[in-house]
Amino acid sequence: MKVNNPVRIVAAGKYLPQKVDSAILEAKYDIPIGWAEKNSGVKSRHMVTFESNAYMGARAIEKALEKAGMKMKDIDLLISAGATYDYPLPNQASVTKSELKDAGDYHVATLDIDTTCLSFVSAFEVAAKMLDGKQYKNIIIVCSEVSTKGLNPNSRETATLFGDAAVAVILQYDESGVSGLIKGGLRTYSEGVEHTIIKGGGNKYFFKDHPYNQDLHSFHMNGIKLLKLAKKKIPEFMDWFFQDLNATIQDVDIIIPHQASKTGLIIFTNLYTLREDVVKGNLVDHGNCISASIPLVLHDLIDSGEIKRGDICMLTGTSAGFSIGGVLIKY
Amino acid sequence: MKVNNPVRIVAAGKYLPQKVDSAILEAKYDIPIGWAEKNSGVKSRHMVTFESNAYMGARAIEKALEKAGMKMKDIDLLISAGATYDYPLPNQASVTKSELKDAGDYHVATLDIDTTCLSFVSAFEVAAKMLDGKQYKNIIIVCSEVSTKGLNPNSRETATLFGDAAVAVILQYDESGVSGLIKGGLRTYSEGVEHTIIKGGGNKYFFKDHPYNQDLHSFHMNGIKLLKLAKKKIPEFMDWFFQDLNATIQDVDIIIPHQASKTGLIIFTNLYTLREDVVKGNLVDHGNCISASIPLVLHDLIDSGEIKRGDICMLTGTSAGFSIGGVLIKY
Repeated sequence: MKVNNPVRIVAAGKYLPQKVDSAILEAKYDIPIGWAEKNSGVKSRHMVTFESNAYMGARAIEKALEKAGMKMKDIDLLISAGATYDYPLPNQASVTKSELKDAGDYHVATLDIDTTCLSFVSAFEVAAKMLDGKQYKNIIIVCSEVSTKGLNPNSRETATLFGDAAVAVILQYDESGVSGLIKGGLRTYSEGVEHTIIKGGGNKYFFKDHPYNQDLHSFHMNGIKLLKLAKKKIPEFMDWFFQDLNATIQDVDIIIPHQASKTGLIIFTNLYTLREDVVKGNLVDHGNCISASIPLVLHDLIDSGEIKRGDICMLTGTSAGFSIGGVLIKY
Repeated sequence: MKVNNPVRIVAAGKYLPQKVDSAILEAKYDIPIGWAEKNSGVKSRHMVTFESNAYMGARAIEKALEKAGMKMKDIDLLISAGATYDYPLPNQASVTKSELKDAGDYHVATLDIDTTCLSFVSAFEVAAKMLDGKQYKNIIIVCSEVSTKGLNPNSRETATLFGDAAVAVILQYDESGVSGLIKGGLRTYSEGVEHTIIKGGGNKYFFKDHPYNQDLHSFHMNGIKLLKLAKKKIPEFMDWFFQDLNATIQDVDIIIPHQASKTGLIIFTNLYTLREDVVKGNLVDHGNCISASIPLVLHDLIDSGEIKRGDICMLTGTSAGFSIGGVLIKY
């Protein structure tokens, strides 16, 4: 499979807040012991205490830079990719940059990209196409998600599913042309636009006219409709994605699906009878960390050496909107 | 000046809500008659009554498609570029897509880009680099901003400055290679991160813990600090932007600055002693429409025939964050 945009993943760094076992949440929300692991597939996740999106993101960036032996002045663009944010304005990337040490000393461009859970995937595609070895030599993507504040404790399904995390990944124009983006793509199926939603807090239900209300301001997920739509549309998406590649998903060495939910992952794996050693995940000990899930799995595969240069790797999944997307890369 | 990414602006469409004269706001907020025009430079602006970001955005898209003689199925990517949104989740582009007629019939990719007031500029740069004449032949950028809900009536300076609007612009891979992006770039100066901010309503001051409060949940602008920083950094940005182009801002035929404020525009124009017929604007009858300001001016220049194929055009300005950015294009 031909690399179209030469990009090398140089390094990744992460920040995880405090670990919280499902038993703690089950006790707190009056949920039967063991329900979370059995139903959501999550034994533990991490949850913020004092941390902001910017704080976690900045720490993940520092880790990634340290591993790469780079400094912020080497970076040409900082993309904050994700769905949650510290302030409605300004954009998260500029807030995250301001949390970095000596932030006033370098003037790296900042940009936010949001396709909710697929934000890392979309940012990877955008970054790959911007990297030109001239103006853009190094781009850092940071996914820092605080999902747990917006959960409804009355909804077991979501209250036990999500986690908080930040991951930063440094991408570099690959002079050698070995590593890179083979293809990226996304499709939005509007019949699912309200299947996952936070209604309150934007212009539609403005704070001033709609005071805080647990239902209105919490994340709402229609799990049944969502799974039905995903099951129907994933094959359509994959056919579209692979049609011009002379390949199928079976030719991929490593697949990192978004850690949407236990049932979602089972449906995806069964659709293609994928081997367990090909499909990588971390739902059990991280939960669904929105856009941070995919790069978090990638981060740990890099650290453990499980992913090797030359591996064909697909990052893919579904997101609120409702969208299905993916990038196929040569690591 | 060499075109690096062949892109042709095919058509633009706009949607404007109800026009509101400054006299109406002055009466409502107990501001002396004539204050707004004199100080903010705004005689009238448009303000939403029933409209959402998605509603206005969808109508602007429909207009642009109509003018181009195109249909949504011809579009490969819909970018929603801007700072305001209907819902905290999902991303605005997917919500705007769902507002379009027959939205279920086509599955165009949706993506949000946010660099606040410079979102159109950033989205233009990203789109130009994604357009390849193969997978991405046509990209539509929509900037739909509802700014007026988040204004503090106690702040004359901001309450009379902003307006609501939506603009959609269709970009096409230019087979002929005539039109396109010469250069795009942005720099973020973190010392200004809090000069323009909406503090409440994100994770930092979460709705649950911080009920609606006019100061906390309204747009806050430190105009004096902002103007001082802009004056200092614009020359630095322009030197950086033009250094490798063998050109200066004086070589540009048409400049569309972000319509930030009356004083901001005067500072910018005076810095470079730019001719009045080169610098285009619409602050007086639209106000600052965040990301929609720049494409709105562009839209009207296309409609009036004031911009011609081959013109060298710069879209530039400052944004919350604090950033300065621009794209230099051959129309």
